[in-house]
Amino acid sequence: MRVDAAEARGLASALLVQFGAPSHHAQLQADLLVEAQLRGHPSHGLLRLPRLLERMEKGLINPAALGHHTWQSASMLIVDGQQGFGPVVAMNALAELVGRAKQTGISIAGIRNANHLGMLAYYVEKAASEGMIVLAFSTSEALVHPFGGKQAMLGTNPLAIGIPAGPSPFVLDMATGTVSMGKIHDHALRGEPIPIGWALDRDGNPTTDATMAKAGSLAPFGAAKGYGIGLAIELLVASLAGSALAPDVRGTLDADHFANKGDLFIVINPPAQPHLSQTLATYLADLRLSPPQQPTHPVTIPGDGGQRRRTASLQHGLEIDADLWASLSGALAAPSPIATQDVYS
Amino acid sequence: MRVDAAEARGLASALLVQFGAPSHHAQLQADLLVEAQLRGHPSHGLLRLPRLLERMEKGLINPAALGHHTWQSASMLIVDGQQGFGPVVAMNALAELVGRAKQTGISIAGIRNANHLGMLAYYVEKAASEGMIVLAFSTSEALVHPFGGKQAMLGTNPLAIGIPAGPSPFVLDMATGTVSMGKIHDHALRGEPIPIGWALDRDGNPTTDATMAKAGSLAPFGAAKGYGIGLAIELLVASLAGSALAPDVRGTLDADHFANKGDLFIVINPPAQPHLSQTLATYLADLRLSPPQQPTHPVTIPGDGGQRRRTASLQHGLEIDADLWASLSGALAAPSPIATQDVYS
Repeated sequence: MRVDAAEARGLASALLVQFGAPSHHAQLQADLLVEAQLRGHPSHGLLRLPRLLERMEKGLINPAALGHHTWQSASMLIVDGQQGFGPVVAMNALAELVGRAKQTGISIAGIRNANHLGMLAYYVEKAASEGMIVLAFSTSEALVHPFGGKQAMLGTNPLAIGIPAGPSPFVLDMATGTVSMGKIHDHALRGEPIPIGWALDRDGNPTTDATMAKAGSLAPFGAAKGYGIGLAIELLVASLAGSALAPDVRGTLDADHFANKGDLFIVINPPAQPHLSQTLATYLADLRLSPPQQPTHPVTIPGDGGQRRRTASLQHGLEIDADLWASLSGALAAPSPIATQDVYS
Repeated sequence: MRVDAAEARGLASALLVQFGAPSHHAQLQADLLVEAQLRGHPSHGLLRLPRLLERMEKGLINPAALGHHTWQSASMLIVDGQQGFGPVVAMNALAELVGRAKQTGISIAGIRNANHLGMLAYYVEKAASEGMIVLAFSTSEALVHPFGGKQAMLGTNPLAIGIPAGPSPFVLDMATGTVSMGKIHDHALRGEPIPIGWALDRDGNPTTDATMAKAGSLAPFGAAKGYGIGLAIELLVASLAGSALAPDVRGTLDADHFANKGDLFIVINPPAQPHLSQTLATYLADLRLSPPQQPTHPVTIPGDGGQRRRTASLQHGLEIDADLWASLSGALAAPSPIATQDVYS
């Protein structure tokens, strides 16, 4: 079904307040979920709300926490997230980083003990719109097997890069698995096979059965090179945030554990370069206009698809699972336990 | 043929001095070439020396230049490479960055107008051995087509990440094309076909003919995601170094143009964490011991292959093309024009 985005944001926010969140924290967390839904990433959308509420109810989320900041040195911020909402802790840290990068050129924050960040594009796009370059990394439960391996040993370890460019910032946001576990669950739900190369089953054998893959592991994207990048993120985040490594990570998918993954933001204040924004815009336009392999599929820039889906969703309404919407609406009308759906990276 | 690594280093260094390089600049540039050769990356090895000498002879390399440093702010260094040797300019900038990161936590340098860096692993490994985390990026001539595109629009845009970990640092060093142009040239030379998916011909059609691929474009690694990373590096480096974008880049492969690509280094002084080095070492060991898909091919960590080849090369001698060695040796004995071989990314 389709609902109005503002209505969805309002409902999500009201539910978060009902479960104990301060109003502006609820609004930010709700905005994250709705923005992911708008761009066609339901696995990072409202599907996660019941799990967040469940975690709040169990005391696994401290909805008032802003994160405790320690400036390790002039440009390095270490954040104990105090089990706050991922977006609240991250946006609070980012605001500090942007201020500091304006003085020192570059700043970095390692964040531990914060809840799930949601869609990384949200953060880097915001800062890039203010003229900052941002690199963002996060870790997760072990879901991805090493290149040539059979066992989930790495997180889906997403990265995002935002770079100011006219007319709108360049925003890359990707996980380092070939596909998300969400896509595997979607296929399992619809009884559809998955291509060989997406995932292994529990015993480490290639499988086309999505249900078998759910209990197995995802392939790293880009073979050995993609595995290398996922592993680098694993080590980078742990080294700077003091967070757990994938096999020990808990609390981004479940409702039983505190979150112990890590997040990392690097903010860079680029030196002024006359015409740079125009030069980048021209180059990106040239890429889009460059000859495509299939005439019906023009070359795109990362983020194009999400922006197209966002525009359409804002115009025609937000696509959302009818049961999920009914369950959320019902919970607000008459507070009661909400049916929790599985969440996955 | 096989030669002693120290002898190769000495010959390369002596030739660079003969063509006008100060002795310690010659030694560093020679070390970069020999280290790449030792690790089994001949395309970044001594094969590049004749082209470097030719560029020196034509005045396209200023062998004495250290790079002109401008601290844009406390943690941001902008370097005009003054057409110096890539390694000389980069190591000089890195020394400054390490010193600054020890004070501020993180520092960044954008470098333009410097010659080819060679193997990025060299830089990040050195700094990681001293306890620093380093991210390195570089750009190049347009050789890679966008995902879904037919025309070379991006550089091979390598990235390297070095992270301190016991007993030796983690070092990832990779280009963002599926394969290097060097590998395509090797296949063409041996008359061997290349797999579909490596490259397109001049007209943008998939090809198994390596000779056709030489005039075409390389596929980005990792499909849309790998393309996204290569593109992000393109924009990131241009934004910070003020260097050219791939379609306008010249001077890393030819002997006709000044080098106008860019390099980017980020150095991070990680906060002290007791047991971190041991924790990372245990995790990396667990990865290597995790069940492999093929019993004969254990899971490896990026850099393992290069280190293995380096150890073997140091023991048994450096593998080098006999004609190249003869040509280099001859040039030193009786100064004369050196047969230049094609160089490629």
